[in-house]
Amino acid sequence: MKPLRRAAILAVGSELLTPSKIDTNSLYLTEQLNLLGIDLAFKSIIGDDRVELARAVRGALERVDLLICTGGLGPTDDDVTREVVAEALGRPLRENRAIGDRIRARFEGRGLQMPEINRRQAMVPEGAQILENTKGTAPGLWLEEGDRVVLLLPGPPRELKAMVALLTEGLLKARASGDVLVRRVIKITGRTESHTEEAVRPLYGEWATAPVAVSATILASLGQIELHLSARAASREEASSAVDEAVGEVANRLGLDAYSLDGEPLEKVVGDLLRVRGYRIALAESCTGGLIASRLTDIPGSSDYVTRGIVAYANDAKTDLLGVPAALIAEHGAVSEPVAVAMAQGIRASAGVEASVGVTGIAGPGGGTPEKPVGTVAIAARVGDVLRSRVYRFVGDRELIKFQASQAALDMVRRILQA
Amino acid sequence: MKPLRRAAILAVGSELLTPSKIDTNSLYLTEQLNLLGIDLAFKSIIGDDRVELARAVRGALERVDLLICTGGLGPTDDDVTREVVAEALGRPLRENRAIGDRIRARFEGRGLQMPEINRRQAMVPEGAQILENTKGTAPGLWLEEGDRVVLLLPGPPRELKAMVALLTEGLLKARASGDVLVRRVIKITGRTESHTEEAVRPLYGEWATAPVAVSATILASLGQIELHLSARAASREEASSAVDEAVGEVANRLGLDAYSLDGEPLEKVVGDLLRVRGYRIALAESCTGGLIASRLTDIPGSSDYVTRGIVAYANDAKTDLLGVPAALIAEHGAVSEPVAVAMAQGIRASAGVEASVGVTGIAGPGGGTPEKPVGTVAIAARVGDVLRSRVYRFVGDRELIKFQASQAALDMVRRILQA
Repeated sequence: MKPLRRAAILAVGSELLTPSKIDTNSLYLTEQLNLLGIDLAFKSIIGDDRVELARAVRGALERVDLLICTGGLGPTDDDVTREVVAEALGRPLRENRAIGDRIRARFEGRGLQMPEINRRQAMVPEGAQILENTKGTAPGLWLEEGDRVVLLLPGPPRELKAMVALLTEGLLKARASGDVLVRRVIKITGRTESHTEEAVRPLYGEWATAPVAVSATILASLGQIELHLSARAASREEASSAVDEAVGEVANRLGLDAYSLDGEPLEKVVGDLLRVRGYRIALAESCTGGLIASRLTDIPGSSDYVTRGIVAYANDAKTDLLGVPAALIAEHGAVSEPVAVAMAQGIRASAGVEASVGVTGIAGPGGGTPEKPVGTVAIAARVGDVLRSRVYRFVGDRELIKFQASQAALDMVRRILQA
Repeated sequence: MKPLRRAAILAVGSELLTPSKIDTNSLYLTEQLNLLGIDLAFKSIIGDDRVELARAVRGALERVDLLICTGGLGPTDDDVTREVVAEALGRPLRENRAIGDRIRARFEGRGLQMPEINRRQAMVPEGAQILENTKGTAPGLWLEEGDRVVLLLPGPPRELKAMVALLTEGLLKARASGDVLVRRVIKITGRTESHTEEAVRPLYGEWATAPVAVSATILASLGQIELHLSARAASREEASSAVDEAVGEVANRLGLDAYSLDGEPLEKVVGDLLRVRGYRIALAESCTGGLIASRLTDIPGSSDYVTRGIVAYANDAKTDLLGVPAALIAEHGAVSEPVAVAMAQGIRASAGVEASVGVTGIAGPGGGTPEKPVGTVAIAARVGDVLRSRVYRFVGDRELIKFQASQAALDMVRRILQA
């Protein structure tokens, strides 16, 4: 039989179409499928609706060789997946004694009688292989239709995960191509999406025609660009080596703008650089309000290099805690490059550390002036003997301005450390 | 024209088919559609793949009267939504001068030259209405095809939200049925999901049989429970008044445990309470690493009451900056109730403010002991004359422990202010 290469996921459940619920099963499934060299072509979320589901099942079967339906295997009337799939494949449903007995035993083991409605969970389309559910009542089902496979999995994540863990060592592995898909994420600052694309696009042609092709996608958000590279090959080594080579080429073209070649967050990259140098850092924050300290301390082990932070929101806090001269604030304004520099120098001196930052700005929505509009942020970084500072103009709402300022401050430290 | 009643969302982007990215735009969209009485029939996530997207667009147009495509409107080669939709509807693409000029001006405003590839974003299908993007370069597009509408929205959430906010007051509202679905979110601390359910369940029967029925869902995550109430009626007034009444009943039963009756974050609730009293607050944080200060300063206008914060990660920072006696740390350990109290008292005295918190704990993954395992956090709050403190044991990873500690500290302040 042909190996499985292209999958679709149908997540079934009306609750997944409300504003507060999201299908997370597909993330785990995608990861497991990719490891077996199976690509995800699309995923759809469908309510407990026979007509829509039947349509989606038939449509998917024309396009992929592995169709995975999650959810809708429960005992109640609105659990329609079993019946709809059986009908779409033209297979009658038959009651399976062994499943019924197992469900009944599960209830009795908890001192309960099996409700009559649970008998529905023992109905199985003709020719299906039954996948035991070690964590719940609804069994999974594996149906082969020529070279294609339809897989029905229970919706509760812990039931689904336990079942998929068995499949990736058993039925699914046996039908995999042996191919492996490897991904890497490069993270970039200091360039727009378009400027990143312009720098990298000349490489695309060569990647596409290489023996192991590498494909690329660019993702942009404020303060951060991601370049995702992936390759598929017969072995993890081959796929990795193709991606590694492409990553190296990108790194050459982007230089210091690529701050991570393996998807790490900026606060981790900065932390690792500080650790290697044996440097400790202290933070003097105004408009970022502690966000830089909080991001740095999200990283396990950061207590090795983060010693202290001061959130000097009020002007007297800048003076009292950071030693910023009141006259300096009066002359240049609290949001100014000299004040950012004085904040960084002040905390560095009092903390007795090797690295520091000072950030002062207007996060908005109030407080802007024509000269210093909302989004104006002055940032200074002192690392070892190097002092840098700059005034930025960020766009976006308050939280985004805070994030971009924290990103720019961490990036300033990183660039000094990597210079 | 017939009112729009059934919608589908196609989220476009290969990154949304990887194990690490999820489509969150559809949650906000669903909420806004529901408010206009428009149901979501299904949603699909599709890669940057012309063939799959064309198929999905054609399939959706047979089944719904409002098709919303999000993403794929960027300037790069893999942004295919505009072209695929134009082709599916049989409408030629034309370059729109005004859009091109606006994008060029946006780049120039940031001191940059517009890259040539951004011209693609000015290509518009014939007959489309253009929706200005106030937060980015890609305009949205509104296409009418008989009674049906196809709506193309940019993928970045803040751009999408700004555009949808205008549509729900404009084009979309004009095409809605007039039926309205109103939702309210009650936020709760200090109870488990089951205890919340026990308190509220007796109300369900009465809500279900009321002239305007109210339905309820409980959503639980670490450190927070949400109760979602919704009602559908011919007018916003009717739906709102049914939901308001139900919210009142819940508030009676939950008392102080319900910290918000309209979905506001805890940091906003605390900020409003401080503002009403004319109190200012200062934060002394160790394991939360600035997260409490950062959350409080996420709220516009928080500079009125947040004066300063100190992230005292190292012990000497606790002594130098907060006046915590070294002997106290030696006697009780840095993670202890007396040290948390000393931190809160210390920063309150030096900042000369009315409210303060002190937080010290073990966020992990290292640093735990049998007596004080990872997740042990001592929290103290001083507000006016009231001082409270407590040692918590949180579960979860480092970021979750930080979040729960910040939540407990803010909640301690809130409860004193509301007592």
